[in-house]
Amino acid sequence: MDYSLIQIKEERLRKDLLDLARFGEEAGRGLKRTALSEADLAARQWFKERMKEAGLKVYEDAAANIIGRLDPKSGPADQPCIATGSHIDTVFQGGRFDGALGICAGLEALRAMQESGLPIPCPLELLVFTDEEGSHFAGTFGSRAMFGQIKEGETEKSRGTGRPTLAQDLRRMGKEPKQIGQAVRSPSEFRAFLELHIEQGPVLETMGVPIGIVDGIVDLHRYLIQVTGQAGHAGTTPMLVRDDALVKAAGIITRVNEAIKSAGPDIVGTIGEIRVNPGAINIIPGEVEMALDLRSLKKETLASVKEAIGEIVNSVSKARIEPILVKEGVKMDPQIRELIKSSCRQQGIPFHLMGSGAGHDAMTFPPLNIPTGMIFIPCKEGKSHCPDEDISFQDAAIGTQVLAETIMRIALANQPV
Amino acid sequence: MDYSLIQIKEERLRKDLLDLARFGEEAGRGLKRTALSEADLAARQWFKERMKEAGLKVYEDAAANIIGRLDPKSGPADQPCIATGSHIDTVFQGGRFDGALGICAGLEALRAMQESGLPIPCPLELLVFTDEEGSHFAGTFGSRAMFGQIKEGETEKSRGTGRPTLAQDLRRMGKEPKQIGQAVRSPSEFRAFLELHIEQGPVLETMGVPIGIVDGIVDLHRYLIQVTGQAGHAGTTPMLVRDDALVKAAGIITRVNEAIKSAGPDIVGTIGEIRVNPGAINIIPGEVEMALDLRSLKKETLASVKEAIGEIVNSVSKARIEPILVKEGVKMDPQIRELIKSSCRQQGIPFHLMGSGAGHDAMTFPPLNIPTGMIFIPCKEGKSHCPDEDISFQDAAIGTQVLAETIMRIALANQPV
Repeated sequence: MDYSLIQIKEERLRKDLLDLARFGEEAGRGLKRTALSEADLAARQWFKERMKEAGLKVYEDAAANIIGRLDPKSGPADQPCIATGSHIDTVFQGGRFDGALGICAGLEALRAMQESGLPIPCPLELLVFTDEEGSHFAGTFGSRAMFGQIKEGETEKSRGTGRPTLAQDLRRMGKEPKQIGQAVRSPSEFRAFLELHIEQGPVLETMGVPIGIVDGIVDLHRYLIQVTGQAGHAGTTPMLVRDDALVKAAGIITRVNEAIKSAGPDIVGTIGEIRVNPGAINIIPGEVEMALDLRSLKKETLASVKEAIGEIVNSVSKARIEPILVKEGVKMDPQIRELIKSSCRQQGIPFHLMGSGAGHDAMTFPPLNIPTGMIFIPCKEGKSHCPDEDISFQDAAIGTQVLAETIMRIALANQPV
Repeated sequence: MDYSLIQIKEERLRKDLLDLARFGEEAGRGLKRTALSEADLAARQWFKERMKEAGLKVYEDAAANIIGRLDPKSGPADQPCIATGSHIDTVFQGGRFDGALGICAGLEALRAMQESGLPIPCPLELLVFTDEEGSHFAGTFGSRAMFGQIKEGETEKSRGTGRPTLAQDLRRMGKEPKQIGQAVRSPSEFRAFLELHIEQGPVLETMGVPIGIVDGIVDLHRYLIQVTGQAGHAGTTPMLVRDDALVKAAGIITRVNEAIKSAGPDIVGTIGEIRVNPGAINIIPGEVEMALDLRSLKKETLASVKEAIGEIVNSVSKARIEPILVKEGVKMDPQIRELIKSSCRQQGIPFHLMGSGAGHDAMTFPPLNIPTGMIFIPCKEGKSHCPDEDISFQDAAIGTQVLAETIMRIALANQPV
């Protein structure tokens, strides 16, 4: 098989990425394309048009996932598909390539595979998952919805007063949240899932290697820490009778950060959100809510840090901690890893085997026994989830080439050659 | 002069207070009647109707202050007036009586004075000041605007992304913010200003005394503390290379609180607002903004604590502190204090001379040499600026009686008896 017939067009990929980056752009503040916001809806519409232009059959499921499908020219259409994809939504003040690279690369790969003239013996799918970033409540919503993993009532929750719930945003799109069960598909419909993503860390750039082959994704735990005090007038309440929820929360932030740092380099933890109630300059804080994000490739490290944090929170009066999300780390499929390696070797592209500190929709597939692979490309200075997030388009094209060839290698595995 | 002819009607005052408390009521979360919000505008409209029913000429100035005026039946109308008043706006999740008591009591006092049949030899005014609580930017906006003390550009500022500026809200009312200068009046138009208010602290209730006579209001300083770090992905950035703005801010909160407490009982300080940017569960905080409120009756204590806080903030990398508001404490007029005492003594009402830890519109008048007095009544458990804020309506009526008699005593001072 002459895989070199698949020719990724860097300029076409670059244009898609830059066109997409205009949706949600805020001058100097990066992208605000949170899931199902106006900017996200416009970007989705634009991307659906690009998918159709590329010859894909496009539909949207009950969880607002966008599915673009390419059936084989010959052979049965109901055999399992090879899927690739990522997400189009961003965090607040996010970058241009987190998620966006994976869907644009998937689109370019499917275009180049068709243009190669090579026979594609099984259905291919390009998946754009809803709310990977969890701006509504918990992350990887769309891929979890696709396999019936949304908890009762989850779509009714939000992470802050005044922020919309997924149910509200789905209804605004004309979808009935109670019917997200209609988005559920059988794992047997999938032969494999592949995701190309920026590394979101400094490793590949530091090594000067354009391709990372992911062997595993970290365990991801998220917690809500609530601290209750007593609101009161900031001018008339003596210091000694105060119960200031923010002062107590500050002690928790400091001690939690120290506990994570002292556990060594195998774990990271972040308090990225804090809300004070009532939250006025002249009122003593009566309540504080904080969100803690904890990740490690090592289960035992995670467990001991989790215990230490529980003790810290419980040592503070009227403070409590509860889990929001517990996502087990996953291993990527060894056979797919080998096929990615083969694609790199054939083109003489250096690669590096590595773990992923970030969660991705690709985490949803391995527990369902769907063989899964993840490919990373470097990002500048390891920056992601911020306006400065950047890549080289040459690296993007190399990653997309590896993605396309790997899809083809999977398609042809166990096929007569 | 038979002051007992002035008969405050407790039931009528109670009804006004409870009717007003319905505007902005949020079940279980107190009142949200921030200045010029929809709820505030509705409350203002309702109150203007009540003022008209009481025979007052009502108008609104360019800063949205509501002015109700009662000219003397005989004698010149252009002599200096005796004014009383307070504010109708609340903090977020505020209580029912902060501000509201002062305007309802002023209305009831003016009604009772007219009903008494006693001659009122000078004009009286009831003033409802705009945005005393400073929900837009800085507090006591309306009373400062009345005397030309609004800083260039102040109406264009807000204390948070997405929160309206005063300029925006004034325009929404059909007022041109550039013309707030039209609200300016000469201090010579005022013979005296009186404000009745809840104590917002625990002193009067603890002592079992229904009337506090304020001798002075604390110095009030407000600061913005900004801490800059480096935003980044919460999963892929090792702990040791992070510059987490919230972790740095937590250290500042802890140390600032300790510095204030260690300065003794003469000072209070509060960080009641904190905002994190970007503020997402999976992003390392890149920037934190906090608002600090610092108050003391003793200038030297305030100065030394301010210096200590400056040192704390400056010891943290990329952190800075800048003043938002510096309001000098003021002394109430000794002669008016004596007239309030006379009103109490005549009715056998116990009183207590005390300082005010809270700022009030009454602070604006003494520096202009307008003789000013403040009367406190107890509030339950010293709670204020919170949903639990409560009073006894009997105390409210006693306070209103003292207010009305004091107005009459001022009106008759230097008049032929």
